[in-house]
Amino acid sequence: MTGKAINSPATNANRLKARRLGVDTQFEAVVFMHKDCPVCRSEGFTAHTRIVLSAGGRHVIATLYHVTSDLLAHDEAALSESAWIRLGVQDGDNIIASHPDPLESLSHVRGRIYGNQLDQAAMNAIISDVVGGRYSDIHLSALLTAGAARPLHDNEVLALTRAMVEAGDRLSWNSDMVLDKHSVGGLPGNRTSPIVVSIIASLGLVIPKTSSRAITSPAGTADTMETMAPVDLDAKAIHKVVEQEGGCIVWGGAVRLSPADDILIRVERALDLDSEGQLVASVLSKKIAAGSSHLVLDMPVGPTAKVRSESAAVALSRALVATAESFGLQAKVILGDGTQPIGRGIGPALEARDVLAVLQCAPDAPQDLRKRAIALAGALIELAGMVPVGLGEAKAAQTLDNGRAWAKFQRICEAQGGMRVPPVSEHQRPLVAARSGRLKTIDNRRIAKLAKLAGAPDDKAAGVELHVRLGEEVTIGQPLCTVHAGAPGELAYALDYAAKNESMFDVQE
Amino acid sequence: MTGKAINSPATNANRLKARRLGVDTQFEAVVFMHKDCPVCRSEGFTAHTRIVLSAGGRHVIATLYHVTSDLLAHDEAALSESAWIRLGVQDGDNIIASHPDPLESLSHVRGRIYGNQLDQAAMNAIISDVVGGRYSDIHLSALLTAGAARPLHDNEVLALTRAMVEAGDRLSWNSDMVLDKHSVGGLPGNRTSPIVVSIIASLGLVIPKTSSRAITSPAGTADTMETMAPVDLDAKAIHKVVEQEGGCIVWGGAVRLSPADDILIRVERALDLDSEGQLVASVLSKKIAAGSSHLVLDMPVGPTAKVRSESAAVALSRALVATAESFGLQAKVILGDGTQPIGRGIGPALEARDVLAVLQCAPDAPQDLRKRAIALAGALIELAGMVPVGLGEAKAAQTLDNGRAWAKFQRICEAQGGMRVPPVSEHQRPLVAARSGRLKTIDNRRIAKLAKLAGAPDDKAAGVELHVRLGEEVTIGQPLCTVHAGAPGELAYALDYAAKNESMFDVQE
Repeated sequence: MTGKAINSPATNANRLKARRLGVDTQFEAVVFMHKDCPVCRSEGFTAHTRIVLSAGGRHVIATLYHVTSDLLAHDEAALSESAWIRLGVQDGDNIIASHPDPLESLSHVRGRIYGNQLDQAAMNAIISDVVGGRYSDIHLSALLTAGAARPLHDNEVLALTRAMVEAGDRLSWNSDMVLDKHSVGGLPGNRTSPIVVSIIASLGLVIPKTSSRAITSPAGTADTMETMAPVDLDAKAIHKVVEQEGGCIVWGGAVRLSPADDILIRVERALDLDSEGQLVASVLSKKIAAGSSHLVLDMPVGPTAKVRSESAAVALSRALVATAESFGLQAKVILGDGTQPIGRGIGPALEARDVLAVLQCAPDAPQDLRKRAIALAGALIELAGMVPVGLGEAKAAQTLDNGRAWAKFQRICEAQGGMRVPPVSEHQRPLVAARSGRLKTIDNRRIAKLAKLAGAPDDKAAGVELHVRLGEEVTIGQPLCTVHAGAPGELAYALDYAAKNESMFDVQE
Repeated sequence: MTGKAINSPATNANRLKARRLGVDTQFEAVVFMHKDCPVCRSEGFTAHTRIVLSAGGRHVIATLYHVTSDLLAHDEAALSESAWIRLGVQDGDNIIASHPDPLESLSHVRGRIYGNQLDQAAMNAIISDVVGGRYSDIHLSALLTAGAARPLHDNEVLALTRAMVEAGDRLSWNSDMVLDKHSVGGLPGNRTSPIVVSIIASLGLVIPKTSSRAITSPAGTADTMETMAPVDLDAKAIHKVVEQEGGCIVWGGAVRLSPADDILIRVERALDLDSEGQLVASVLSKKIAAGSSHLVLDMPVGPTAKVRSESAAVALSRALVATAESFGLQAKVILGDGTQPIGRGIGPALEARDVLAVLQCAPDAPQDLRKRAIALAGALIELAGMVPVGLGEAKAAQTLDNGRAWAKFQRICEAQGGMRVPPVSEHQRPLVAARSGRLKTIDNRRIAKLAKLAGAPDDKAAGVELHVRLGEEVTIGQPLCTVHAGAPGELAYALDYAAKNESMFDVQE
C-alpha cells in the first residue's frame, strides 16, 4: 500500500509570531492561538489538544486554547510563562506549530494497567516521553495509579530507577567515596541536612548535597538554605564548591537530576498517593544521578508522618537498600520518631534559625534536631568506614562541640556565594492553650498547613514557631506556638484555620 | 487553643469583577487573575490551583492561572468560555473566589486503588463529585485506571450504574414498552442505529434513541446523524419528535442522561482504556436514565474489534444482561462478525452515505450494513413480542423493502429540525495495493486511526472509504480505500501514517 504525502507536516504555513502573554500556568505549557488562525484551520487544531511548538531547534508540547476575541492577531501564538521560558523565544520570533507524534509508549502503560510487567525498554520509552512533556496529567495519573494498584515488581523498580537516572544529567566527582543523605520527609522542621553536611565535610569526606524546594510542604532544604546562602548553582559552580570545601547544600533543580521525578511527584501529590516502588525509584534515581556511593536515609515514622507504621517502614527500608545495592550504592536507613515536628521552626527562615543554633552549640538549640543530625551523620561516618560501628555518633558530636562543623558551614556558605542572615517576619501572633493539661498529640500535617497559610515557603520568614513538645504540661493561656506572617491577610487566614483546627494541638486535662 | 482572625475568609475582599476573555478551553473551566490581586494574596492562591467561583447562587470550580502582565486589572477575574457560560455572569458582575472544600470522596478512590471495594454510598459520593466538576483530570484518570487494574466486582458495577443514573436526569415516556438499541462499538462504519430506529418506528413501536458522539472512534451515531439532521435537541423537543414519529436519533448530551459518563468517557478516550465494569455502567446508565424497557445490544467480535474473543463476548454479555435485569431492563446481546469494518464509509458523512443507501434500497447499498441492521431490528421486534421468535428479521426486511423505513427516517429528520445532505470532503487520495493477491485481514483499529488522522469526527466529511472486502482478490495498483480529509495538513498526516502502516491491509500473494 502506498500513499504519497502532499506536503510534509509542519511547513511554512504553520508559522506564527511568538508573543509573551504574561500568564503563569506553573508547569503546564499553554499556547493561545486565534481560533480562526490559518494554522488551526489547516492542521485541524481544536481547543485543548496538545500540539508541538518549535523554535530555534527547541520543542515544547503545549495545550492549545483558542482565542475567540481580539486579544490576539491571527498570526500570533501567545505563550504561557512556562512555554516561553522552555522554548527560549523573544517577542516576534517565528514559531512552528505541528501535531505531536503518536504516543507509542502509552501501550506499555495500558499493558501495565492490565498486569503486564514492564521491561527496561518499556520503562525507558515511558520515562523518555514523560521527561519530554508528552504525557498529559491523564497519562501521568494512569501510570502512577497502575503502579499503586498493582505494585511494581523488584525488577520493574530497578528498570524504573535506571530509566529515571538516564533521562537526566549525572554528576561525577574526583572521589571514590561520595556520601549523601536523604529524608523520606513528611515531618515539619526536620532540617538536618545543613548540619549533617557540615559535620561530614569537616571530617574531610565528600558530601555534595543537592536538595529540592518545597512542593506541598512549608519548606524544602533548598528553601531553608537559601535564607543563609545562595543555592541556585549550576553544575560547574557546584563542583567548585565541593572541590574547595568537600560539601555543599544546593538546589538540585539547576542540574536536571532525574527530571522525571519532578514531573511525577506533582501528580502523586494531587492524588496523595505514594507507592513504594515509585518512592524508591524517585529517591534513588536522584542520588544515583548525583553520583553518590554511600547514602543514609532518614525515615521518621509516625501516624501523621509520611511513613505511618513500623511495618511500612521496614518494607520500604528493605526495598530502598536492595535497589540501591543493585546500582552499587551502599544505603542505610535510620528510623526515627515521627510523632511531632523536629526543632522549633517550621518555614524556611525559622528552620534556618534552628540549624544555626545547633551548629553554634547555642544553649537554647533544639536538642531533638541536634540528636537527629548526629544520628544521621554518625551512620554516614560508619558507612564510610571512618570509625568502627558504634563510634560514629561520638565522632559527629565532636565536630559540633569543637566548632569545626560550624566553621565548615560558614565556609560552605561563603563558597556558595556569601552567607546571609535569615529574615524575620513582620507579623507575629501567638496561639495560646484553651485549657490546661498535658500535650498528647501534635498533627504534623495540620501544623504544616498552618505554616503554609501563613505564607511559607514563598515568604521565607513566614511559618510556625513551636513552644511546646509532646508530653509537656501546659496551662490555659500559655502560648503553644507563634504564627509568623509577612502580611496581615496571610496572618488572618492562618489564624482562621487555627481557630477551626484547635485539635491540631491535643491538650488533655 | 484560640486565635482570633482579623477578618474571615471569603468576605468582600474576595470579590472580583467578571470579565469575558474570549478564550475557548473546551470543557476545562479556567480563571485568570492578576498575581498581585488582593484575593490571590490573602487566600494564598497559587497558579494552577483549583478554586471555587461563585456568582448569583451558581458555583464553578476553575483552574487558576496568574497573570503577571497588564492584561488584567487587580480587581478582575477573567473567565474562559466554559466557566463564563456555566457561571452565567455578565461583564462587571461580582464574583467571589474561595478555596474548594476538601475532596473527601478521593479517599474512596485511594482505597479502591489499594483494593477496597466501593459500596453505594462511596460510589454516590465519587460520582457526585465527578458530575460537580470537582475531580481534576488526575483524579478522574486514577479512578478509571483503578477500575481497570482491579476489575470492578458485580456489586460495584451495580452501585456505579445506579450512582451514574441518579447523578443525572431521567426521561419517561407515555408507553410501557420503550425499545432501545446500543452497539458495543469498536467496529468502524457500524452505523445501524438510524436504520434500526426507522424500521422499529415504522412498525408503530416506540424507540427514542439517544446517542453519543465519538469516544475513541472516528464517528459516533450522533456525529453521523448530525450530517443528516440536527441532533442537539433538549428533552422537550425530543419528546415532541417521539410523540409524533415514535422514534428519534438524537445526541444524548443535551438531556444530561448519566452526565458522569460524558466526563469519564473523555478521560477513557485519552487513555484508550475500557474496563468491563465501567463499560457496563456506562452503557446501561444511559439506557436506564433514558427510560428504556427493552434493549438489544450489538456486539461485534473480532481480533481488532473492541471485544476480541468469543469468551470475552460471553463474559461481557452476561454482565450486561444481568446488570440490566437488576434495573428491570430486558436486554439481549447479538454477537456479530467483527473481523472487518461494516459498510464502506468510516467517518460521519461517509457513514451517513451508507445509511442512506440502505434505507433507500440503492443497488450499491452495502449489504453487510443492511443485514446487521435487519438482525438487530429483528431481535428488537421479537423482544417486543410483535412476532414469534424467528420471524423478526423478515418483518424488519419488509419495512426496508416496502419503503416504510425510509419514509419514517425522512419524517424523523424533518421532526428533528430538517433533513440535510452529508458534506463531501475537499481532499481525497486513494491508497493503492502494493502487490497483487488476496485480502487476508483488515486492522479495524488502524483503519479507525487513519480516519481520525484524516480529521474524523470533528471534520464531518473526513474519514476513510473502503473499496475492498476480506477475501477479495486485488491487483497491484488497485485502490484499497480512499482517504477523505478537509485540510492538506490532515491529509498529509493520514497518508504518512498509512505509509508507515501498510500491513493494516494484509494482501497475501
